[in-house]
This record gives sequence, structure tokens and C-alpha cells, in this order.
Amino acid sequence: MTDLSQTAVLGAGVIGASWTALFLAAGKSVTVFDPAQGADAIVQDYVDRAWPVLEQLGLATHARGQLRFTDDPADAVAGAGFVQESVPERLEVKHALYARIEPALASDAVVASSASGLTLSEMQGGWQNPGPLVLGHPFNPPHLIPLVEVMGNTRTRPGAVETAERFYAEVGKITIRVNKEVPGHVANRLQAALWREAIHLVTEGVASVEDVDKAVWAGPGLRWATMGPTTLFHLGAGAGGLAEFCTRYADSFNRWWDDLGTPYLNAETADRLVAGMAEATAGADPVSLSEDRDALIAAMQAATAPLRKG
Amino acid sequence: MTDLSQTAVLGAGVIGASWTALFLAAGKSVTVFDPAQGADAIVQDYVDRAWPVLEQLGLATHARGQLRFTDDPADAVAGAGFVQESVPERLEVKHALYARIEPALASDAVVASSASGLTLSEMQGGWQNPGPLVLGHPFNPPHLIPLVEVMGNTRTRPGAVETAERFYAEVGKITIRVNKEVPGHVANRLQAALWREAIHLVTEGVASVEDVDKAVWAGPGLRWATMGPTTLFHLGAGAGGLAEFCTRYADSFNRWWDDLGTPYLNAETADRLVAGMAEATAGADPVSLSEDRDALIAAMQAATAPLRKG
Repeated sequence: MTDLSQTAVLGAGVIGASWTALFLAAGKSVTVFDPAQGADAIVQDYVDRAWPVLEQLGLATHARGQLRFTDDPADAVAGAGFVQESVPERLEVKHALYARIEPALASDAVVASSASGLTLSEMQGGWQNPGPLVLGHPFNPPHLIPLVEVMGNTRTRPGAVETAERFYAEVGKITIRVNKEVPGHVANRLQAALWREAIHLVTEGVASVEDVDKAVWAGPGLRWATMGPTTLFHLGAGAGGLAEFCTRYADSFNRWWDDLGTPYLNAETADRLVAGMAEATAGADPVSLSEDRDALIAAMQAATAPLRKG
Repeated sequence: MTDLSQTAVLGAGVIGASWTALFLAAGKSVTVFDPAQGADAIVQDYVDRAWPVLEQLGLATHARGQLRFTDDPADAVAGAGFVQESVPERLEVKHALYARIEPALASDAVVASSASGLTLSEMQGGWQNPGPLVLGHPFNPPHLIPLVEVMGNTRTRPGAVETAERFYAEVGKITIRVNKEVPGHVANRLQAALWREAIHLVTEGVASVEDVDKAVWAGPGLRWATMGPTTLFHLGAGAGGLAEFCTRYADSFNRWWDDLGTPYLNAETADRLVAGMAEATAGADPVSLSEDRDALIAAMQAATAPLRKG
């Protein structure tokens, strides 16, 4: 089995920095590659600020791992069993990086890409042999949101997906397996579906941006943080479960589905949303609101962790 | 202003019983009407079981209100300032009830219907003068999920919607205003949009029922319990806010939207979902899973309440 104690993080923007903090909290050694001037100080600062939350969430399970920086990606991956790649989402940037690291990789190393927009098969084009490459798409910020979408295909080395899943479990993530290549993988498509109807309700004048958002966090959103939609409907018809739910509510859902909107995100729609958002937030800036969001998520995670283990 | 200390709950199924518990916790007097034999014992038992959660959530703000049962709906509403109607969702049942209570209502009383499937204008057909009737659609169970969707229209008495909103605020609910009649109001449409894509991903073989559900609760679902989708995207592009987000990601969303599925809930789809659910839950029964769900929701609510006040 691949030794997963030594890792590399390629690309140290917000996502790479967050991965770094999480890996260190699980006691992994991390070598960070990023070509930007001053990336080392930014990552170090990010890790220090993330640390109290990692402790609150119970993710700081080991003595903090060793952190090293390098400006050579081949140096970063040398000796690493697991590599998380989070460089900018442009195919030529990814391909150029893969060409530099491929000769330096250990034979059993796994390289997981954080890509959300590019597909695995597009990224495989940058390799002599794409066997080590899997998709390991996190939700932002990765040290706070447990989900990672993992995917391999017929060109992926047998066992590489399982090794990635084992690594993610070691650092406290929850993985799902994506079995087929579609734009947006799974979670971004679900977000897109929800947002499309939210926008439709606003542009049709059914409710304000603020009220549609409130309808989520004070309503079904509370349930979606506990269980997924199909499980929740399985619980929505008593002892009869999902079969009974489908029988009872199929007509309602089919009618609602026929009536859902199909807006596009063009300039007019964006203006409408931005105006509604300005009303809703009354001038609060997005950066401080992000801190509110992260504090709420951390509090919920900490409160529910004992129940999930039970 | 309408005196809101005395209330009536018409229909004491699960939703009516939950409303009763919440109103009593806020110190309201509640008179419950339900024609079923033994409804009084069931409601009393429901209230007793809900009480510890109401205390945990800080919703038991007053000495427990007085609870009375009657088999006459006109008797139930006599003297009540606020009436919550949660009888079965069949128009003839609602209309028959409205005909019995209308002559007994105080002149400034408000009657809120919990209806999810029927529209306000359909329900108004059962009144001589539908001025007192508003939509007050909760999320199940109402004592645990804060959202209430409130709606009036041109036939609603001026001030009735505002009175309902004032009452719901007194009992700890969070209301949104629905400005236009559409099937499913707001939150059920958002749920329908999410579930449609979840089903599509399953039927297309992209991921299992269990993994699609996991993608929600371990991913965006965690964020949706803190803020709504538009606010979250407002925070997703740093200081540039929603305008920057729309510029940066419009192409991605438009492409994803074009690719989202449009399944129907027919027998074949239901069978597929039920089979996936059986795998996911490994035989755990829906009723005990519901208790897990409610415990998670209560823990999240209790953990985030101090932050939301801050």
C-alpha cells in the first residue's frame, strides 16, 4: 500500500492553502509548490488562522505535520505518496505542470486534481501515462466542508481511486464516487439546479432575493445539512418510506417540475440579483459575511459530530 | 391591534400537533379542533415529547399556555385572534370547515392555512368574505424548522398578512412573503428543483442514491443551512461580490443549466430510487432515521442561535 504520510500540494491559492492546513492537522508532511512570490508566507498565515477551527472540528488529530516550500514541482512530489493539485483551471497550465511532475512521481503515488470545471479526460491529455491521476474535487474551503468528489476512469491505474479515498478518510473528508463524466460533476450540478429556480422565483416576482434565500436557510437548507434530499423524502411519509412518498407525491412533483423556470445568467439577470443582494445585505461586505458563514458552519459541524458518530 | 394571546389550531395531525406545541411554548392559549377520536391524547403526547426540544431551542419562552380540546370548530375559533388551519389538503374539506368557522370569527381574527398544494385563491372560494384568510405554510415539523411562507392577495383584509407575520415572529418563526401565486409557493419548488437533478444523476448512473445524498449533506447542504444560494455566491468571489461572481461563472452555470436533466417521477424512477435508498439505509427504518434527523437539526439550531443573534 502507498505510504500516505508524505504529501505535496501543488498550487497554493485559497484551495491549496486550505488543503495544506487540513493535511498538516492530520499529521501529514506537506511540501507546497507555488510559483508566486510570497506564497509561503500567505500559506503559513492561512494555516495559522485555520488551526483553531481545525481543533474545534476535531480534525487536528495528530501533532502538526512538517511544512516545506519549494519552487520546483518535481522537488515537491519527490517521495510523496499523495499529491493534491489545485493550480488555476486552465488546461495548458495543468498540462504543463503534469509534464514537469510525471518523471519525478513515485511509482505508486496518486495525484488528485481539485478541478471543478475541467473533466478528468481533458486533464489526462497532459500525461504520458495518466495512471496516477484522479479527480479529487473539494468544496470550498476544503478544511471546513467535508465533501470530496472522487473519480477515475479506464485509463486510471487500478487502485488509485481507492488509495485517494483512503487518504481522504485519513484526513477527515467524506468522499463520493463519480462514475460518469458530466459537466459539473455532482455537487455543482445540484447547486446549479437549486440556484436556477431561486433566480426564476426572483425574476418572476414571486419573492425577493432576500426572501428566497431565507426560504432556504430557515427551511429545507436546515434539513439538507443533516441528510440528502432522497433520504429526507424517505422519511417524509412515515413508515411507508420512499415508495409511499413517491406514490403520494408523484403528481405534485411532476406538476412542479413542469412549472420550474429556465432562466439564463445574462447581464439583466445579474443586475437583478445584484440589486436584490444589496437590499438583503444592507451594505455588509462579502468578506465579513464569509467569516459569519464559516463560523456558522464550524458551529454546526462541531455540534453534530457527536451525533453522527453515535 | 389584534390580541394574539388566544389561538385556535384546526386539524391536529402531525402538523397541527407541532403547531400546538410551538404556540403553547410561546405562552399562547390554544384550543384544538379535530374530529378524530382520541386526537386529544395524541396531541397531548406530541406536546410532551416536543417540549424538551422547544426548551433546547429557546422557543419555550413563557409559561406553558392553556390547552383545550373541542369537537366544534366554531367553538375553537370563538375569541381567538389567530387561527392556524391544518386540515387535510382537499378543497371540499377546507371549504366545509371555513363555512363553519366564518360566522364565529372575531372581526379582527386572522386564519392562516398550512396548505402546501392548494393555492390561496382556491381556498378563498370557500368563504363569504375571505378577508381573514392568509397562507401560512410551514416546513415540517413546524416547531423545529423556522420557515413560514406567508401570502395574501387583493381579497385579503388589509393588515391580515402583517398580523400573521407579527404572530409568527412572537412564536419564533422566520417568515417570507410570497408575492405571486405559483404551484409549490417557494421552498417546495426549490426542493423540487434540487431533487429533480439528484434523480437525474442517479438514473444516468453518475452516482448512487447514497452518494448523491452525501454530496448534499457533506457539501453544499452544510452551507445552505447557514445562508441562501444567492448570498453564498455573493461570498464566492471575494470582495467583488455577486457582480464579480456572475461575470466569472456565468458561462459555467449556463453550460450546467443546459445539461441538467428533466426526469419524471414515474414507477420506473421510483423503483430505482427505492432500491438505492434500501442500499443506502441498509434496513434502518424511516421512523428512527427521522429521530436522527430531528436531533441533528435541533443540535445545529441550538449551536447557531447565539451566532445569529450576534
